[in-house]
Amino acid sequence: MKIGILGGGQLARMLALGGHPLGATFVVLDPTPGVCASVVAEQVVGDYDDREKLEIFAKQADVVTYEFENVPAEGVKYLAAGKVPVYPSPQALAVSRDRLNEKTLFRELGIPTPNFAAISNLDDLKKAARDIGLPAVLKSRTMGYDGKGQAVIKTENDIEDAWEKVGRVECILEGFVTFTREISIIAVRSRTGEVLYYPVGENTHSGGILHHNAVVNGFDDPMQKVAEDYSRRLLDHFGYVGVLSLELFDANGVLMANEIAPRVHNTGHWTIEGAETSQFENHIRAIMGLPLGDTSPVGCSAMVNFIGAIPSAESVLTIKGAHFHDYGKSAKPGRKIGHGTIRGDVKADVLASLDKLLKLV
Amino acid sequence: MKIGILGGGQLARMLALGGHPLGATFVVLDPTPGVCASVVAEQVVGDYDDREKLEIFAKQADVVTYEFENVPAEGVKYLAAGKVPVYPSPQALAVSRDRLNEKTLFRELGIPTPNFAAISNLDDLKKAARDIGLPAVLKSRTMGYDGKGQAVIKTENDIEDAWEKVGRVECILEGFVTFTREISIIAVRSRTGEVLYYPVGENTHSGGILHHNAVVNGFDDPMQKVAEDYSRRLLDHFGYVGVLSLELFDANGVLMANEIAPRVHNTGHWTIEGAETSQFENHIRAIMGLPLGDTSPVGCSAMVNFIGAIPSAESVLTIKGAHFHDYGKSAKPGRKIGHGTIRGDVKADVLASLDKLLKLV
Repeated sequence: MKIGILGGGQLARMLALGGHPLGATFVVLDPTPGVCASVVAEQVVGDYDDREKLEIFAKQADVVTYEFENVPAEGVKYLAAGKVPVYPSPQALAVSRDRLNEKTLFRELGIPTPNFAAISNLDDLKKAARDIGLPAVLKSRTMGYDGKGQAVIKTENDIEDAWEKVGRVECILEGFVTFTREISIIAVRSRTGEVLYYPVGENTHSGGILHHNAVVNGFDDPMQKVAEDYSRRLLDHFGYVGVLSLELFDANGVLMANEIAPRVHNTGHWTIEGAETSQFENHIRAIMGLPLGDTSPVGCSAMVNFIGAIPSAESVLTIKGAHFHDYGKSAKPGRKIGHGTIRGDVKADVLASLDKLLKLV
Repeated sequence: MKIGILGGGQLARMLALGGHPLGATFVVLDPTPGVCASVVAEQVVGDYDDREKLEIFAKQADVVTYEFENVPAEGVKYLAAGKVPVYPSPQALAVSRDRLNEKTLFRELGIPTPNFAAISNLDDLKKAARDIGLPAVLKSRTMGYDGKGQAVIKTENDIEDAWEKVGRVECILEGFVTFTREISIIAVRSRTGEVLYYPVGENTHSGGILHHNAVVNGFDDPMQKVAEDYSRRLLDHFGYVGVLSLELFDANGVLMANEIAPRVHNTGHWTIEGAETSQFENHIRAIMGLPLGDTSPVGCSAMVNFIGAIPSAESVLTIKGAHFHDYGKSAKPGRKIGHGTIRGDVKADVLASLDKLLKLV
């Protein structure tokens, strides 16, 4: 079976590495020639809304998936309109790429989420700031990721600057949540409706980008069952096929949904070494219509992103339990170009190695 | 770093899958266009002794390795003569591809091996049959693998037939060993001389081809230390770099070396899921000059070859702890086209799943 992936970055690369053993082959569509997935997949060079290239791409693929949610919805709809099966469904993509739709869906499904209001202009914003209260966060409805398209509003004096900074676009204003930690849960649903969850992981961000995350308690995290319940509501709502990531704020034992990603996710990279079946393989299994693989953790794991620069393989691989992932991308400030994972059977050992790895970045 | 592999079959494919995360890229040289490694590596289509193609191949690679030992020695020597570093050394290749040299080296290094004699003609064979005693096995010195180029001689009446069957070529006659089991040990040596061993596995053959193997006792196999000692002698002798496989007969607690393979090996496929670092990644780490990865087993594992036909992914993946490997090769009688691995934390569970998997082949 040949799998088409919209986007040819590291997620596509790791999907292909996880899927080749299943006998799948891969083609990616990406506008940049020689993207990092192209060493393990064929590439059609083209824009995501270039119908001619979409046609060439679709003809090669038996099933299509995507590695990021900012794929133009028109392109996905064009593919899904009888050309080739697209998983997860374009509906999940459409919801996830618009923060207003996303938060509205959380509310509809009874999943707690911070207060929010739709913002179309400066007057909306001023009114919402009074209704929701400050501090609050202004976020563009679309094209926001890794902390981009956001501005914190601490006092009324910040309102106009925030409006300018985010770019006078359709936004939401979100009430500020004081949370004790951010967690995420990766789930996978098969074509037949089978659902499996990975253990939740704790995420640490820096400058709006995931810095590192850790899964140390297996399925014993006190919030595991609540997170599974919320994830399940989304999966069932969409009749979802593939991997879904859900990020949640944990405010002293009360979970509030932050956002979803309808794809494999950075907070699930630890599953390559740290789970019986990786999120990448399970996404491919799901969209191929195969039985899902066991999501149980194998010991404890922690993952550190390499952003803008990558430590030497030597320095990483001398750390006990460390695994090295170099995406083969050129270095650029703020760009994710690799990650390291620590896996071990003893929590204290994993945390000690994590400390060492964090010193390298 | 770009790694050149002589041969583009499943071993090259799994080397590339294991090496991409380290940031390596791959080029294979293989005479057959579109070999199964070519979905994860570039391919130069050419014979192994075609100097022009070897030149093109060598120019692309920073380091060269091989996936099978029957590469013409001239090609390897040509590459190693200043063109590009070749690991493991051509000397190891030369020894392993000639059973007489191999057995002679075992003897020189004090590694027990069945009685043997060099055979150049029918008279040699008749004499050796008397000296060594029957039953015995006649084996061609070169080009033998998966049971090819062999004939069992039970009585004197079989001698002439065996000589014809093996093809009147340079041979060895080997005394028949009554062994309780066949085991193999996979070891890896780095450029700096660091050596690590995987746990020994027990092999079961059918028709001369490995049928399945299992690693259930971790490092606790009673023969582990002896096997490590013998492997070490070979690694040190060659100043070896990369993965070396050593197959041994276990005759009631006495180990006798059968053969070596200077490469990743079918009896180490379980390491993909069943060890902290796979044999494939460790071979790549070694030849790249990186620190070696932990060879500890993660639970128990068993591997079953898919030969000539492959069960459906569905049927394999519904077995507890099963992982599926489809090499993307066309089916042909006697051809290895995939394998399945069972991994689990409990020995009894792994053996129960192994039984189920064996029923599918």
